[in-house]
Amino acid sequence: MDAAEFRRRGKEMVDYVADYLENIEKRQVYPDVEPGYLRSLIPEEAPEEAESYEDVVKDIERVIMPGVTHWHSPYFYAYFPTAHSFPAMLADMLCGAIGCIGFSWAASPACTELETVMLDWLGKMLKLPEDFLAGTEGRGGGVIQGTASEATLIALLAARSKIVKLIQADHPDRSETDIISKLVAYSSDQFCATLGTTPSCAFDCITELGPICNAEKIWMHIDAAYAGSAFICPEFRPLLNGVEFADSFNFNPHKWLLVNFDCSAMWVKKRSDIIGAFKMEPLYLKHDHQESGNQSHWQIPLGRRFRSLKMWFVFRMYGLKGLQAYIRKHVGLAKEFETLVRADQRFEISADVVLGLVCFRFKGSNELNETLLKRINRARKIHLVPCQLAGKFVLRFAVCARTTESRHVQEAWSHISHLASELLQELPH
Amino acid sequence: MDAAEFRRRGKEMVDYVADYLENIEKRQVYPDVEPGYLRSLIPEEAPEEAESYEDVVKDIERVIMPGVTHWHSPYFYAYFPTAHSFPAMLADMLCGAIGCIGFSWAASPACTELETVMLDWLGKMLKLPEDFLAGTEGRGGGVIQGTASEATLIALLAARSKIVKLIQADHPDRSETDIISKLVAYSSDQFCATLGTTPSCAFDCITELGPICNAEKIWMHIDAAYAGSAFICPEFRPLLNGVEFADSFNFNPHKWLLVNFDCSAMWVKKRSDIIGAFKMEPLYLKHDHQESGNQSHWQIPLGRRFRSLKMWFVFRMYGLKGLQAYIRKHVGLAKEFETLVRADQRFEISADVVLGLVCFRFKGSNELNETLLKRINRARKIHLVPCQLAGKFVLRFAVCARTTESRHVQEAWSHISHLASELLQELPH
Repeated sequence: MDAAEFRRRGKEMVDYVADYLENIEKRQVYPDVEPGYLRSLIPEEAPEEAESYEDVVKDIERVIMPGVTHWHSPYFYAYFPTAHSFPAMLADMLCGAIGCIGFSWAASPACTELETVMLDWLGKMLKLPEDFLAGTEGRGGGVIQGTASEATLIALLAARSKIVKLIQADHPDRSETDIISKLVAYSSDQFCATLGTTPSCAFDCITELGPICNAEKIWMHIDAAYAGSAFICPEFRPLLNGVEFADSFNFNPHKWLLVNFDCSAMWVKKRSDIIGAFKMEPLYLKHDHQESGNQSHWQIPLGRRFRSLKMWFVFRMYGLKGLQAYIRKHVGLAKEFETLVRADQRFEISADVVLGLVCFRFKGSNELNETLLKRINRARKIHLVPCQLAGKFVLRFAVCARTTESRHVQEAWSHISHLASELLQELPH
Repeated sequence: MDAAEFRRRGKEMVDYVADYLENIEKRQVYPDVEPGYLRSLIPEEAPEEAESYEDVVKDIERVIMPGVTHWHSPYFYAYFPTAHSFPAMLADMLCGAIGCIGFSWAASPACTELETVMLDWLGKMLKLPEDFLAGTEGRGGGVIQGTASEATLIALLAARSKIVKLIQADHPDRSETDIISKLVAYSSDQFCATLGTTPSCAFDCITELGPICNAEKIWMHIDAAYAGSAFICPEFRPLLNGVEFADSFNFNPHKWLLVNFDCSAMWVKKRSDIIGAFKMEPLYLKHDHQESGNQSHWQIPLGRRFRSLKMWFVFRMYGLKGLQAYIRKHVGLAKEFETLVRADQRFEISADVVLGLVCFRFKGSNELNETLLKRINRARKIHLVPCQLAGKFVLRFAVCARTTESRHVQEAWSHISHLASELLQELPH
């Protein structure tokens, strides 16, 4: 395929993508396929000879779509949202075309620098303490990780490296292995200090945890994977109070800030802590501007895509006000669903509805709730997943898709309510 | 931006991308900017109000392009190639539109299943031993990691978890901490067993290493990040002999197999070894088809993009023969460059030219070679990076871009040769 054919096929793909998203409501949100469905639909080996683009494209609807869970359908209320927007998709096209690998400043100055500045922009949107920003002379700064799990791992490794150096400064005779074998990491059953847990969007009290960590020289990492996006709204920013005690902070714009996956934003107060844990520089990566920062020293992979383009496009084309309006709309839809649940005496709300997640259940046994969830998901009209809260089986209703509107939420509730009535009628009185 | 505007803007972006790639030779391969150039070109904060798409797009040429190292220019001979093709870019557009997060089978059956089958396809192209394939009943299988570094980390963690379990089976009283503190990892200065090192594309003798590892119950991980793609050609497949002794094997289709970054393929002989090290399943990830494999248990991140679409598009639209022809063309160009170097008595070849990399130097001091490289890169016509081999400063000429032709290689050599003559003339006789 040459550039001329790409012009034609690329435009066809743009139309396919637009058609898919404009009509996504008409597709069943959760697929009917059984495990192993795909292998029998395609050959056992790659073709020897090239196939035509038409043949490949035909297979999207035949092979792929029957097995897709449509995360961007307004009937998808499972897990947490994964971000999705047209500006981010356009930026990703550009990212693919430039196709640079930003593992040093020289390998792609624009990639290194735009990322630093975008993380400053985003830090300012969140009103992060100045310490976390790179600025032109700051000691902190941000980096894009792939996921919150990677950010947590990086924080752990940086914390370990830092405390080993601290202890060895006082006890030069102690070996690294010996020190490491005695280190302790404190966590809850959701791991590190968390703002907005996955099961119920609960918040740790970091204003209490923080001073203890600081006094005891414990590295405090805060994970706000889902909730973090909401902190760009002044009314939700108090949830982040206490971040000033943290050594590192992370949230995922790829969850709720319209920047397509993957884009997990992580900030540290002292870049030197994290760079000290990872830096390595073989000759083939040395260059004239060696001293210029690059984020490869802040992550497990050496290579990195030009992911900050997505942030740049999204932040500019929505503007801070547009992003705030988007968050508020989702929170409003969750509140609307909460009101519907509360108005039905058969149900109870299982956790405070702070942002876009509603945890609810039948006032009844776990078995009854499990059965209700099974029926909801088997009906395939909407898609939900459960969680467990204090031994109780709970249903989670997360407002996910960018295009979810009040009518979808109303429809979802009347569907759930209908299935609940059916189920209750079947029970022995 | 709605779907209608996306149709328009998406098509404009397709044209921009095609224009960029058709005319990339006219751009200076390595940028002129100094560190910090970008911050002064854009505002210090994200805008409050949304900006127009025109404003954003204008800034691509004003802000981004002046700081881009053009990895896909046929004058780029630095590092190793990073893969880039039109089919992969089309697949990535589809991946972004579906925007699913494949962290369990249920979260996106197509994403989980296509990945398993594509890794089988690719394993068969490489003629990997049957043990490494998933098939319908196999115990092995493949997974897409982000980078080779991540694959190495995963192999290390899986190896650690496996040996701890083995030792604890015989000594149930020994703690994990105690066992881990006594574990040893063997590596060369390129780390694990490597086929095609980064400095010089050298090959470890895995037919010697392998039997020792097996006899001593040492997990053998083989990294063929760059070279691996060549093993799809029968004439290069012998370089992979000995892989039958390995526990895990990894190479990067995103380097040299036309699948855009990131796509690092990793296989293991026993899925259970690797899943045992990572599996965790909170209630919100449980589903009816729990037993169906998913690759989230094989990696650090929980979330994952639908990256196998890129492989599927590329393998089908090139066909095995097209991919082999691509590899052979690059190797041929490297041989052509080698011949030019060997014909010039002032230069020497510093390492066997096995694939697409030529390591060469002036017959002279390291300082002289450093000066030559500086002048090459400052002239900005082509871009190279150095390496160090046995104390010697060596220039690396890696055939990188998909569109590199013989004329570019000839031009590059006459340019290097000219700069070399200039430099030698300046030296005191």
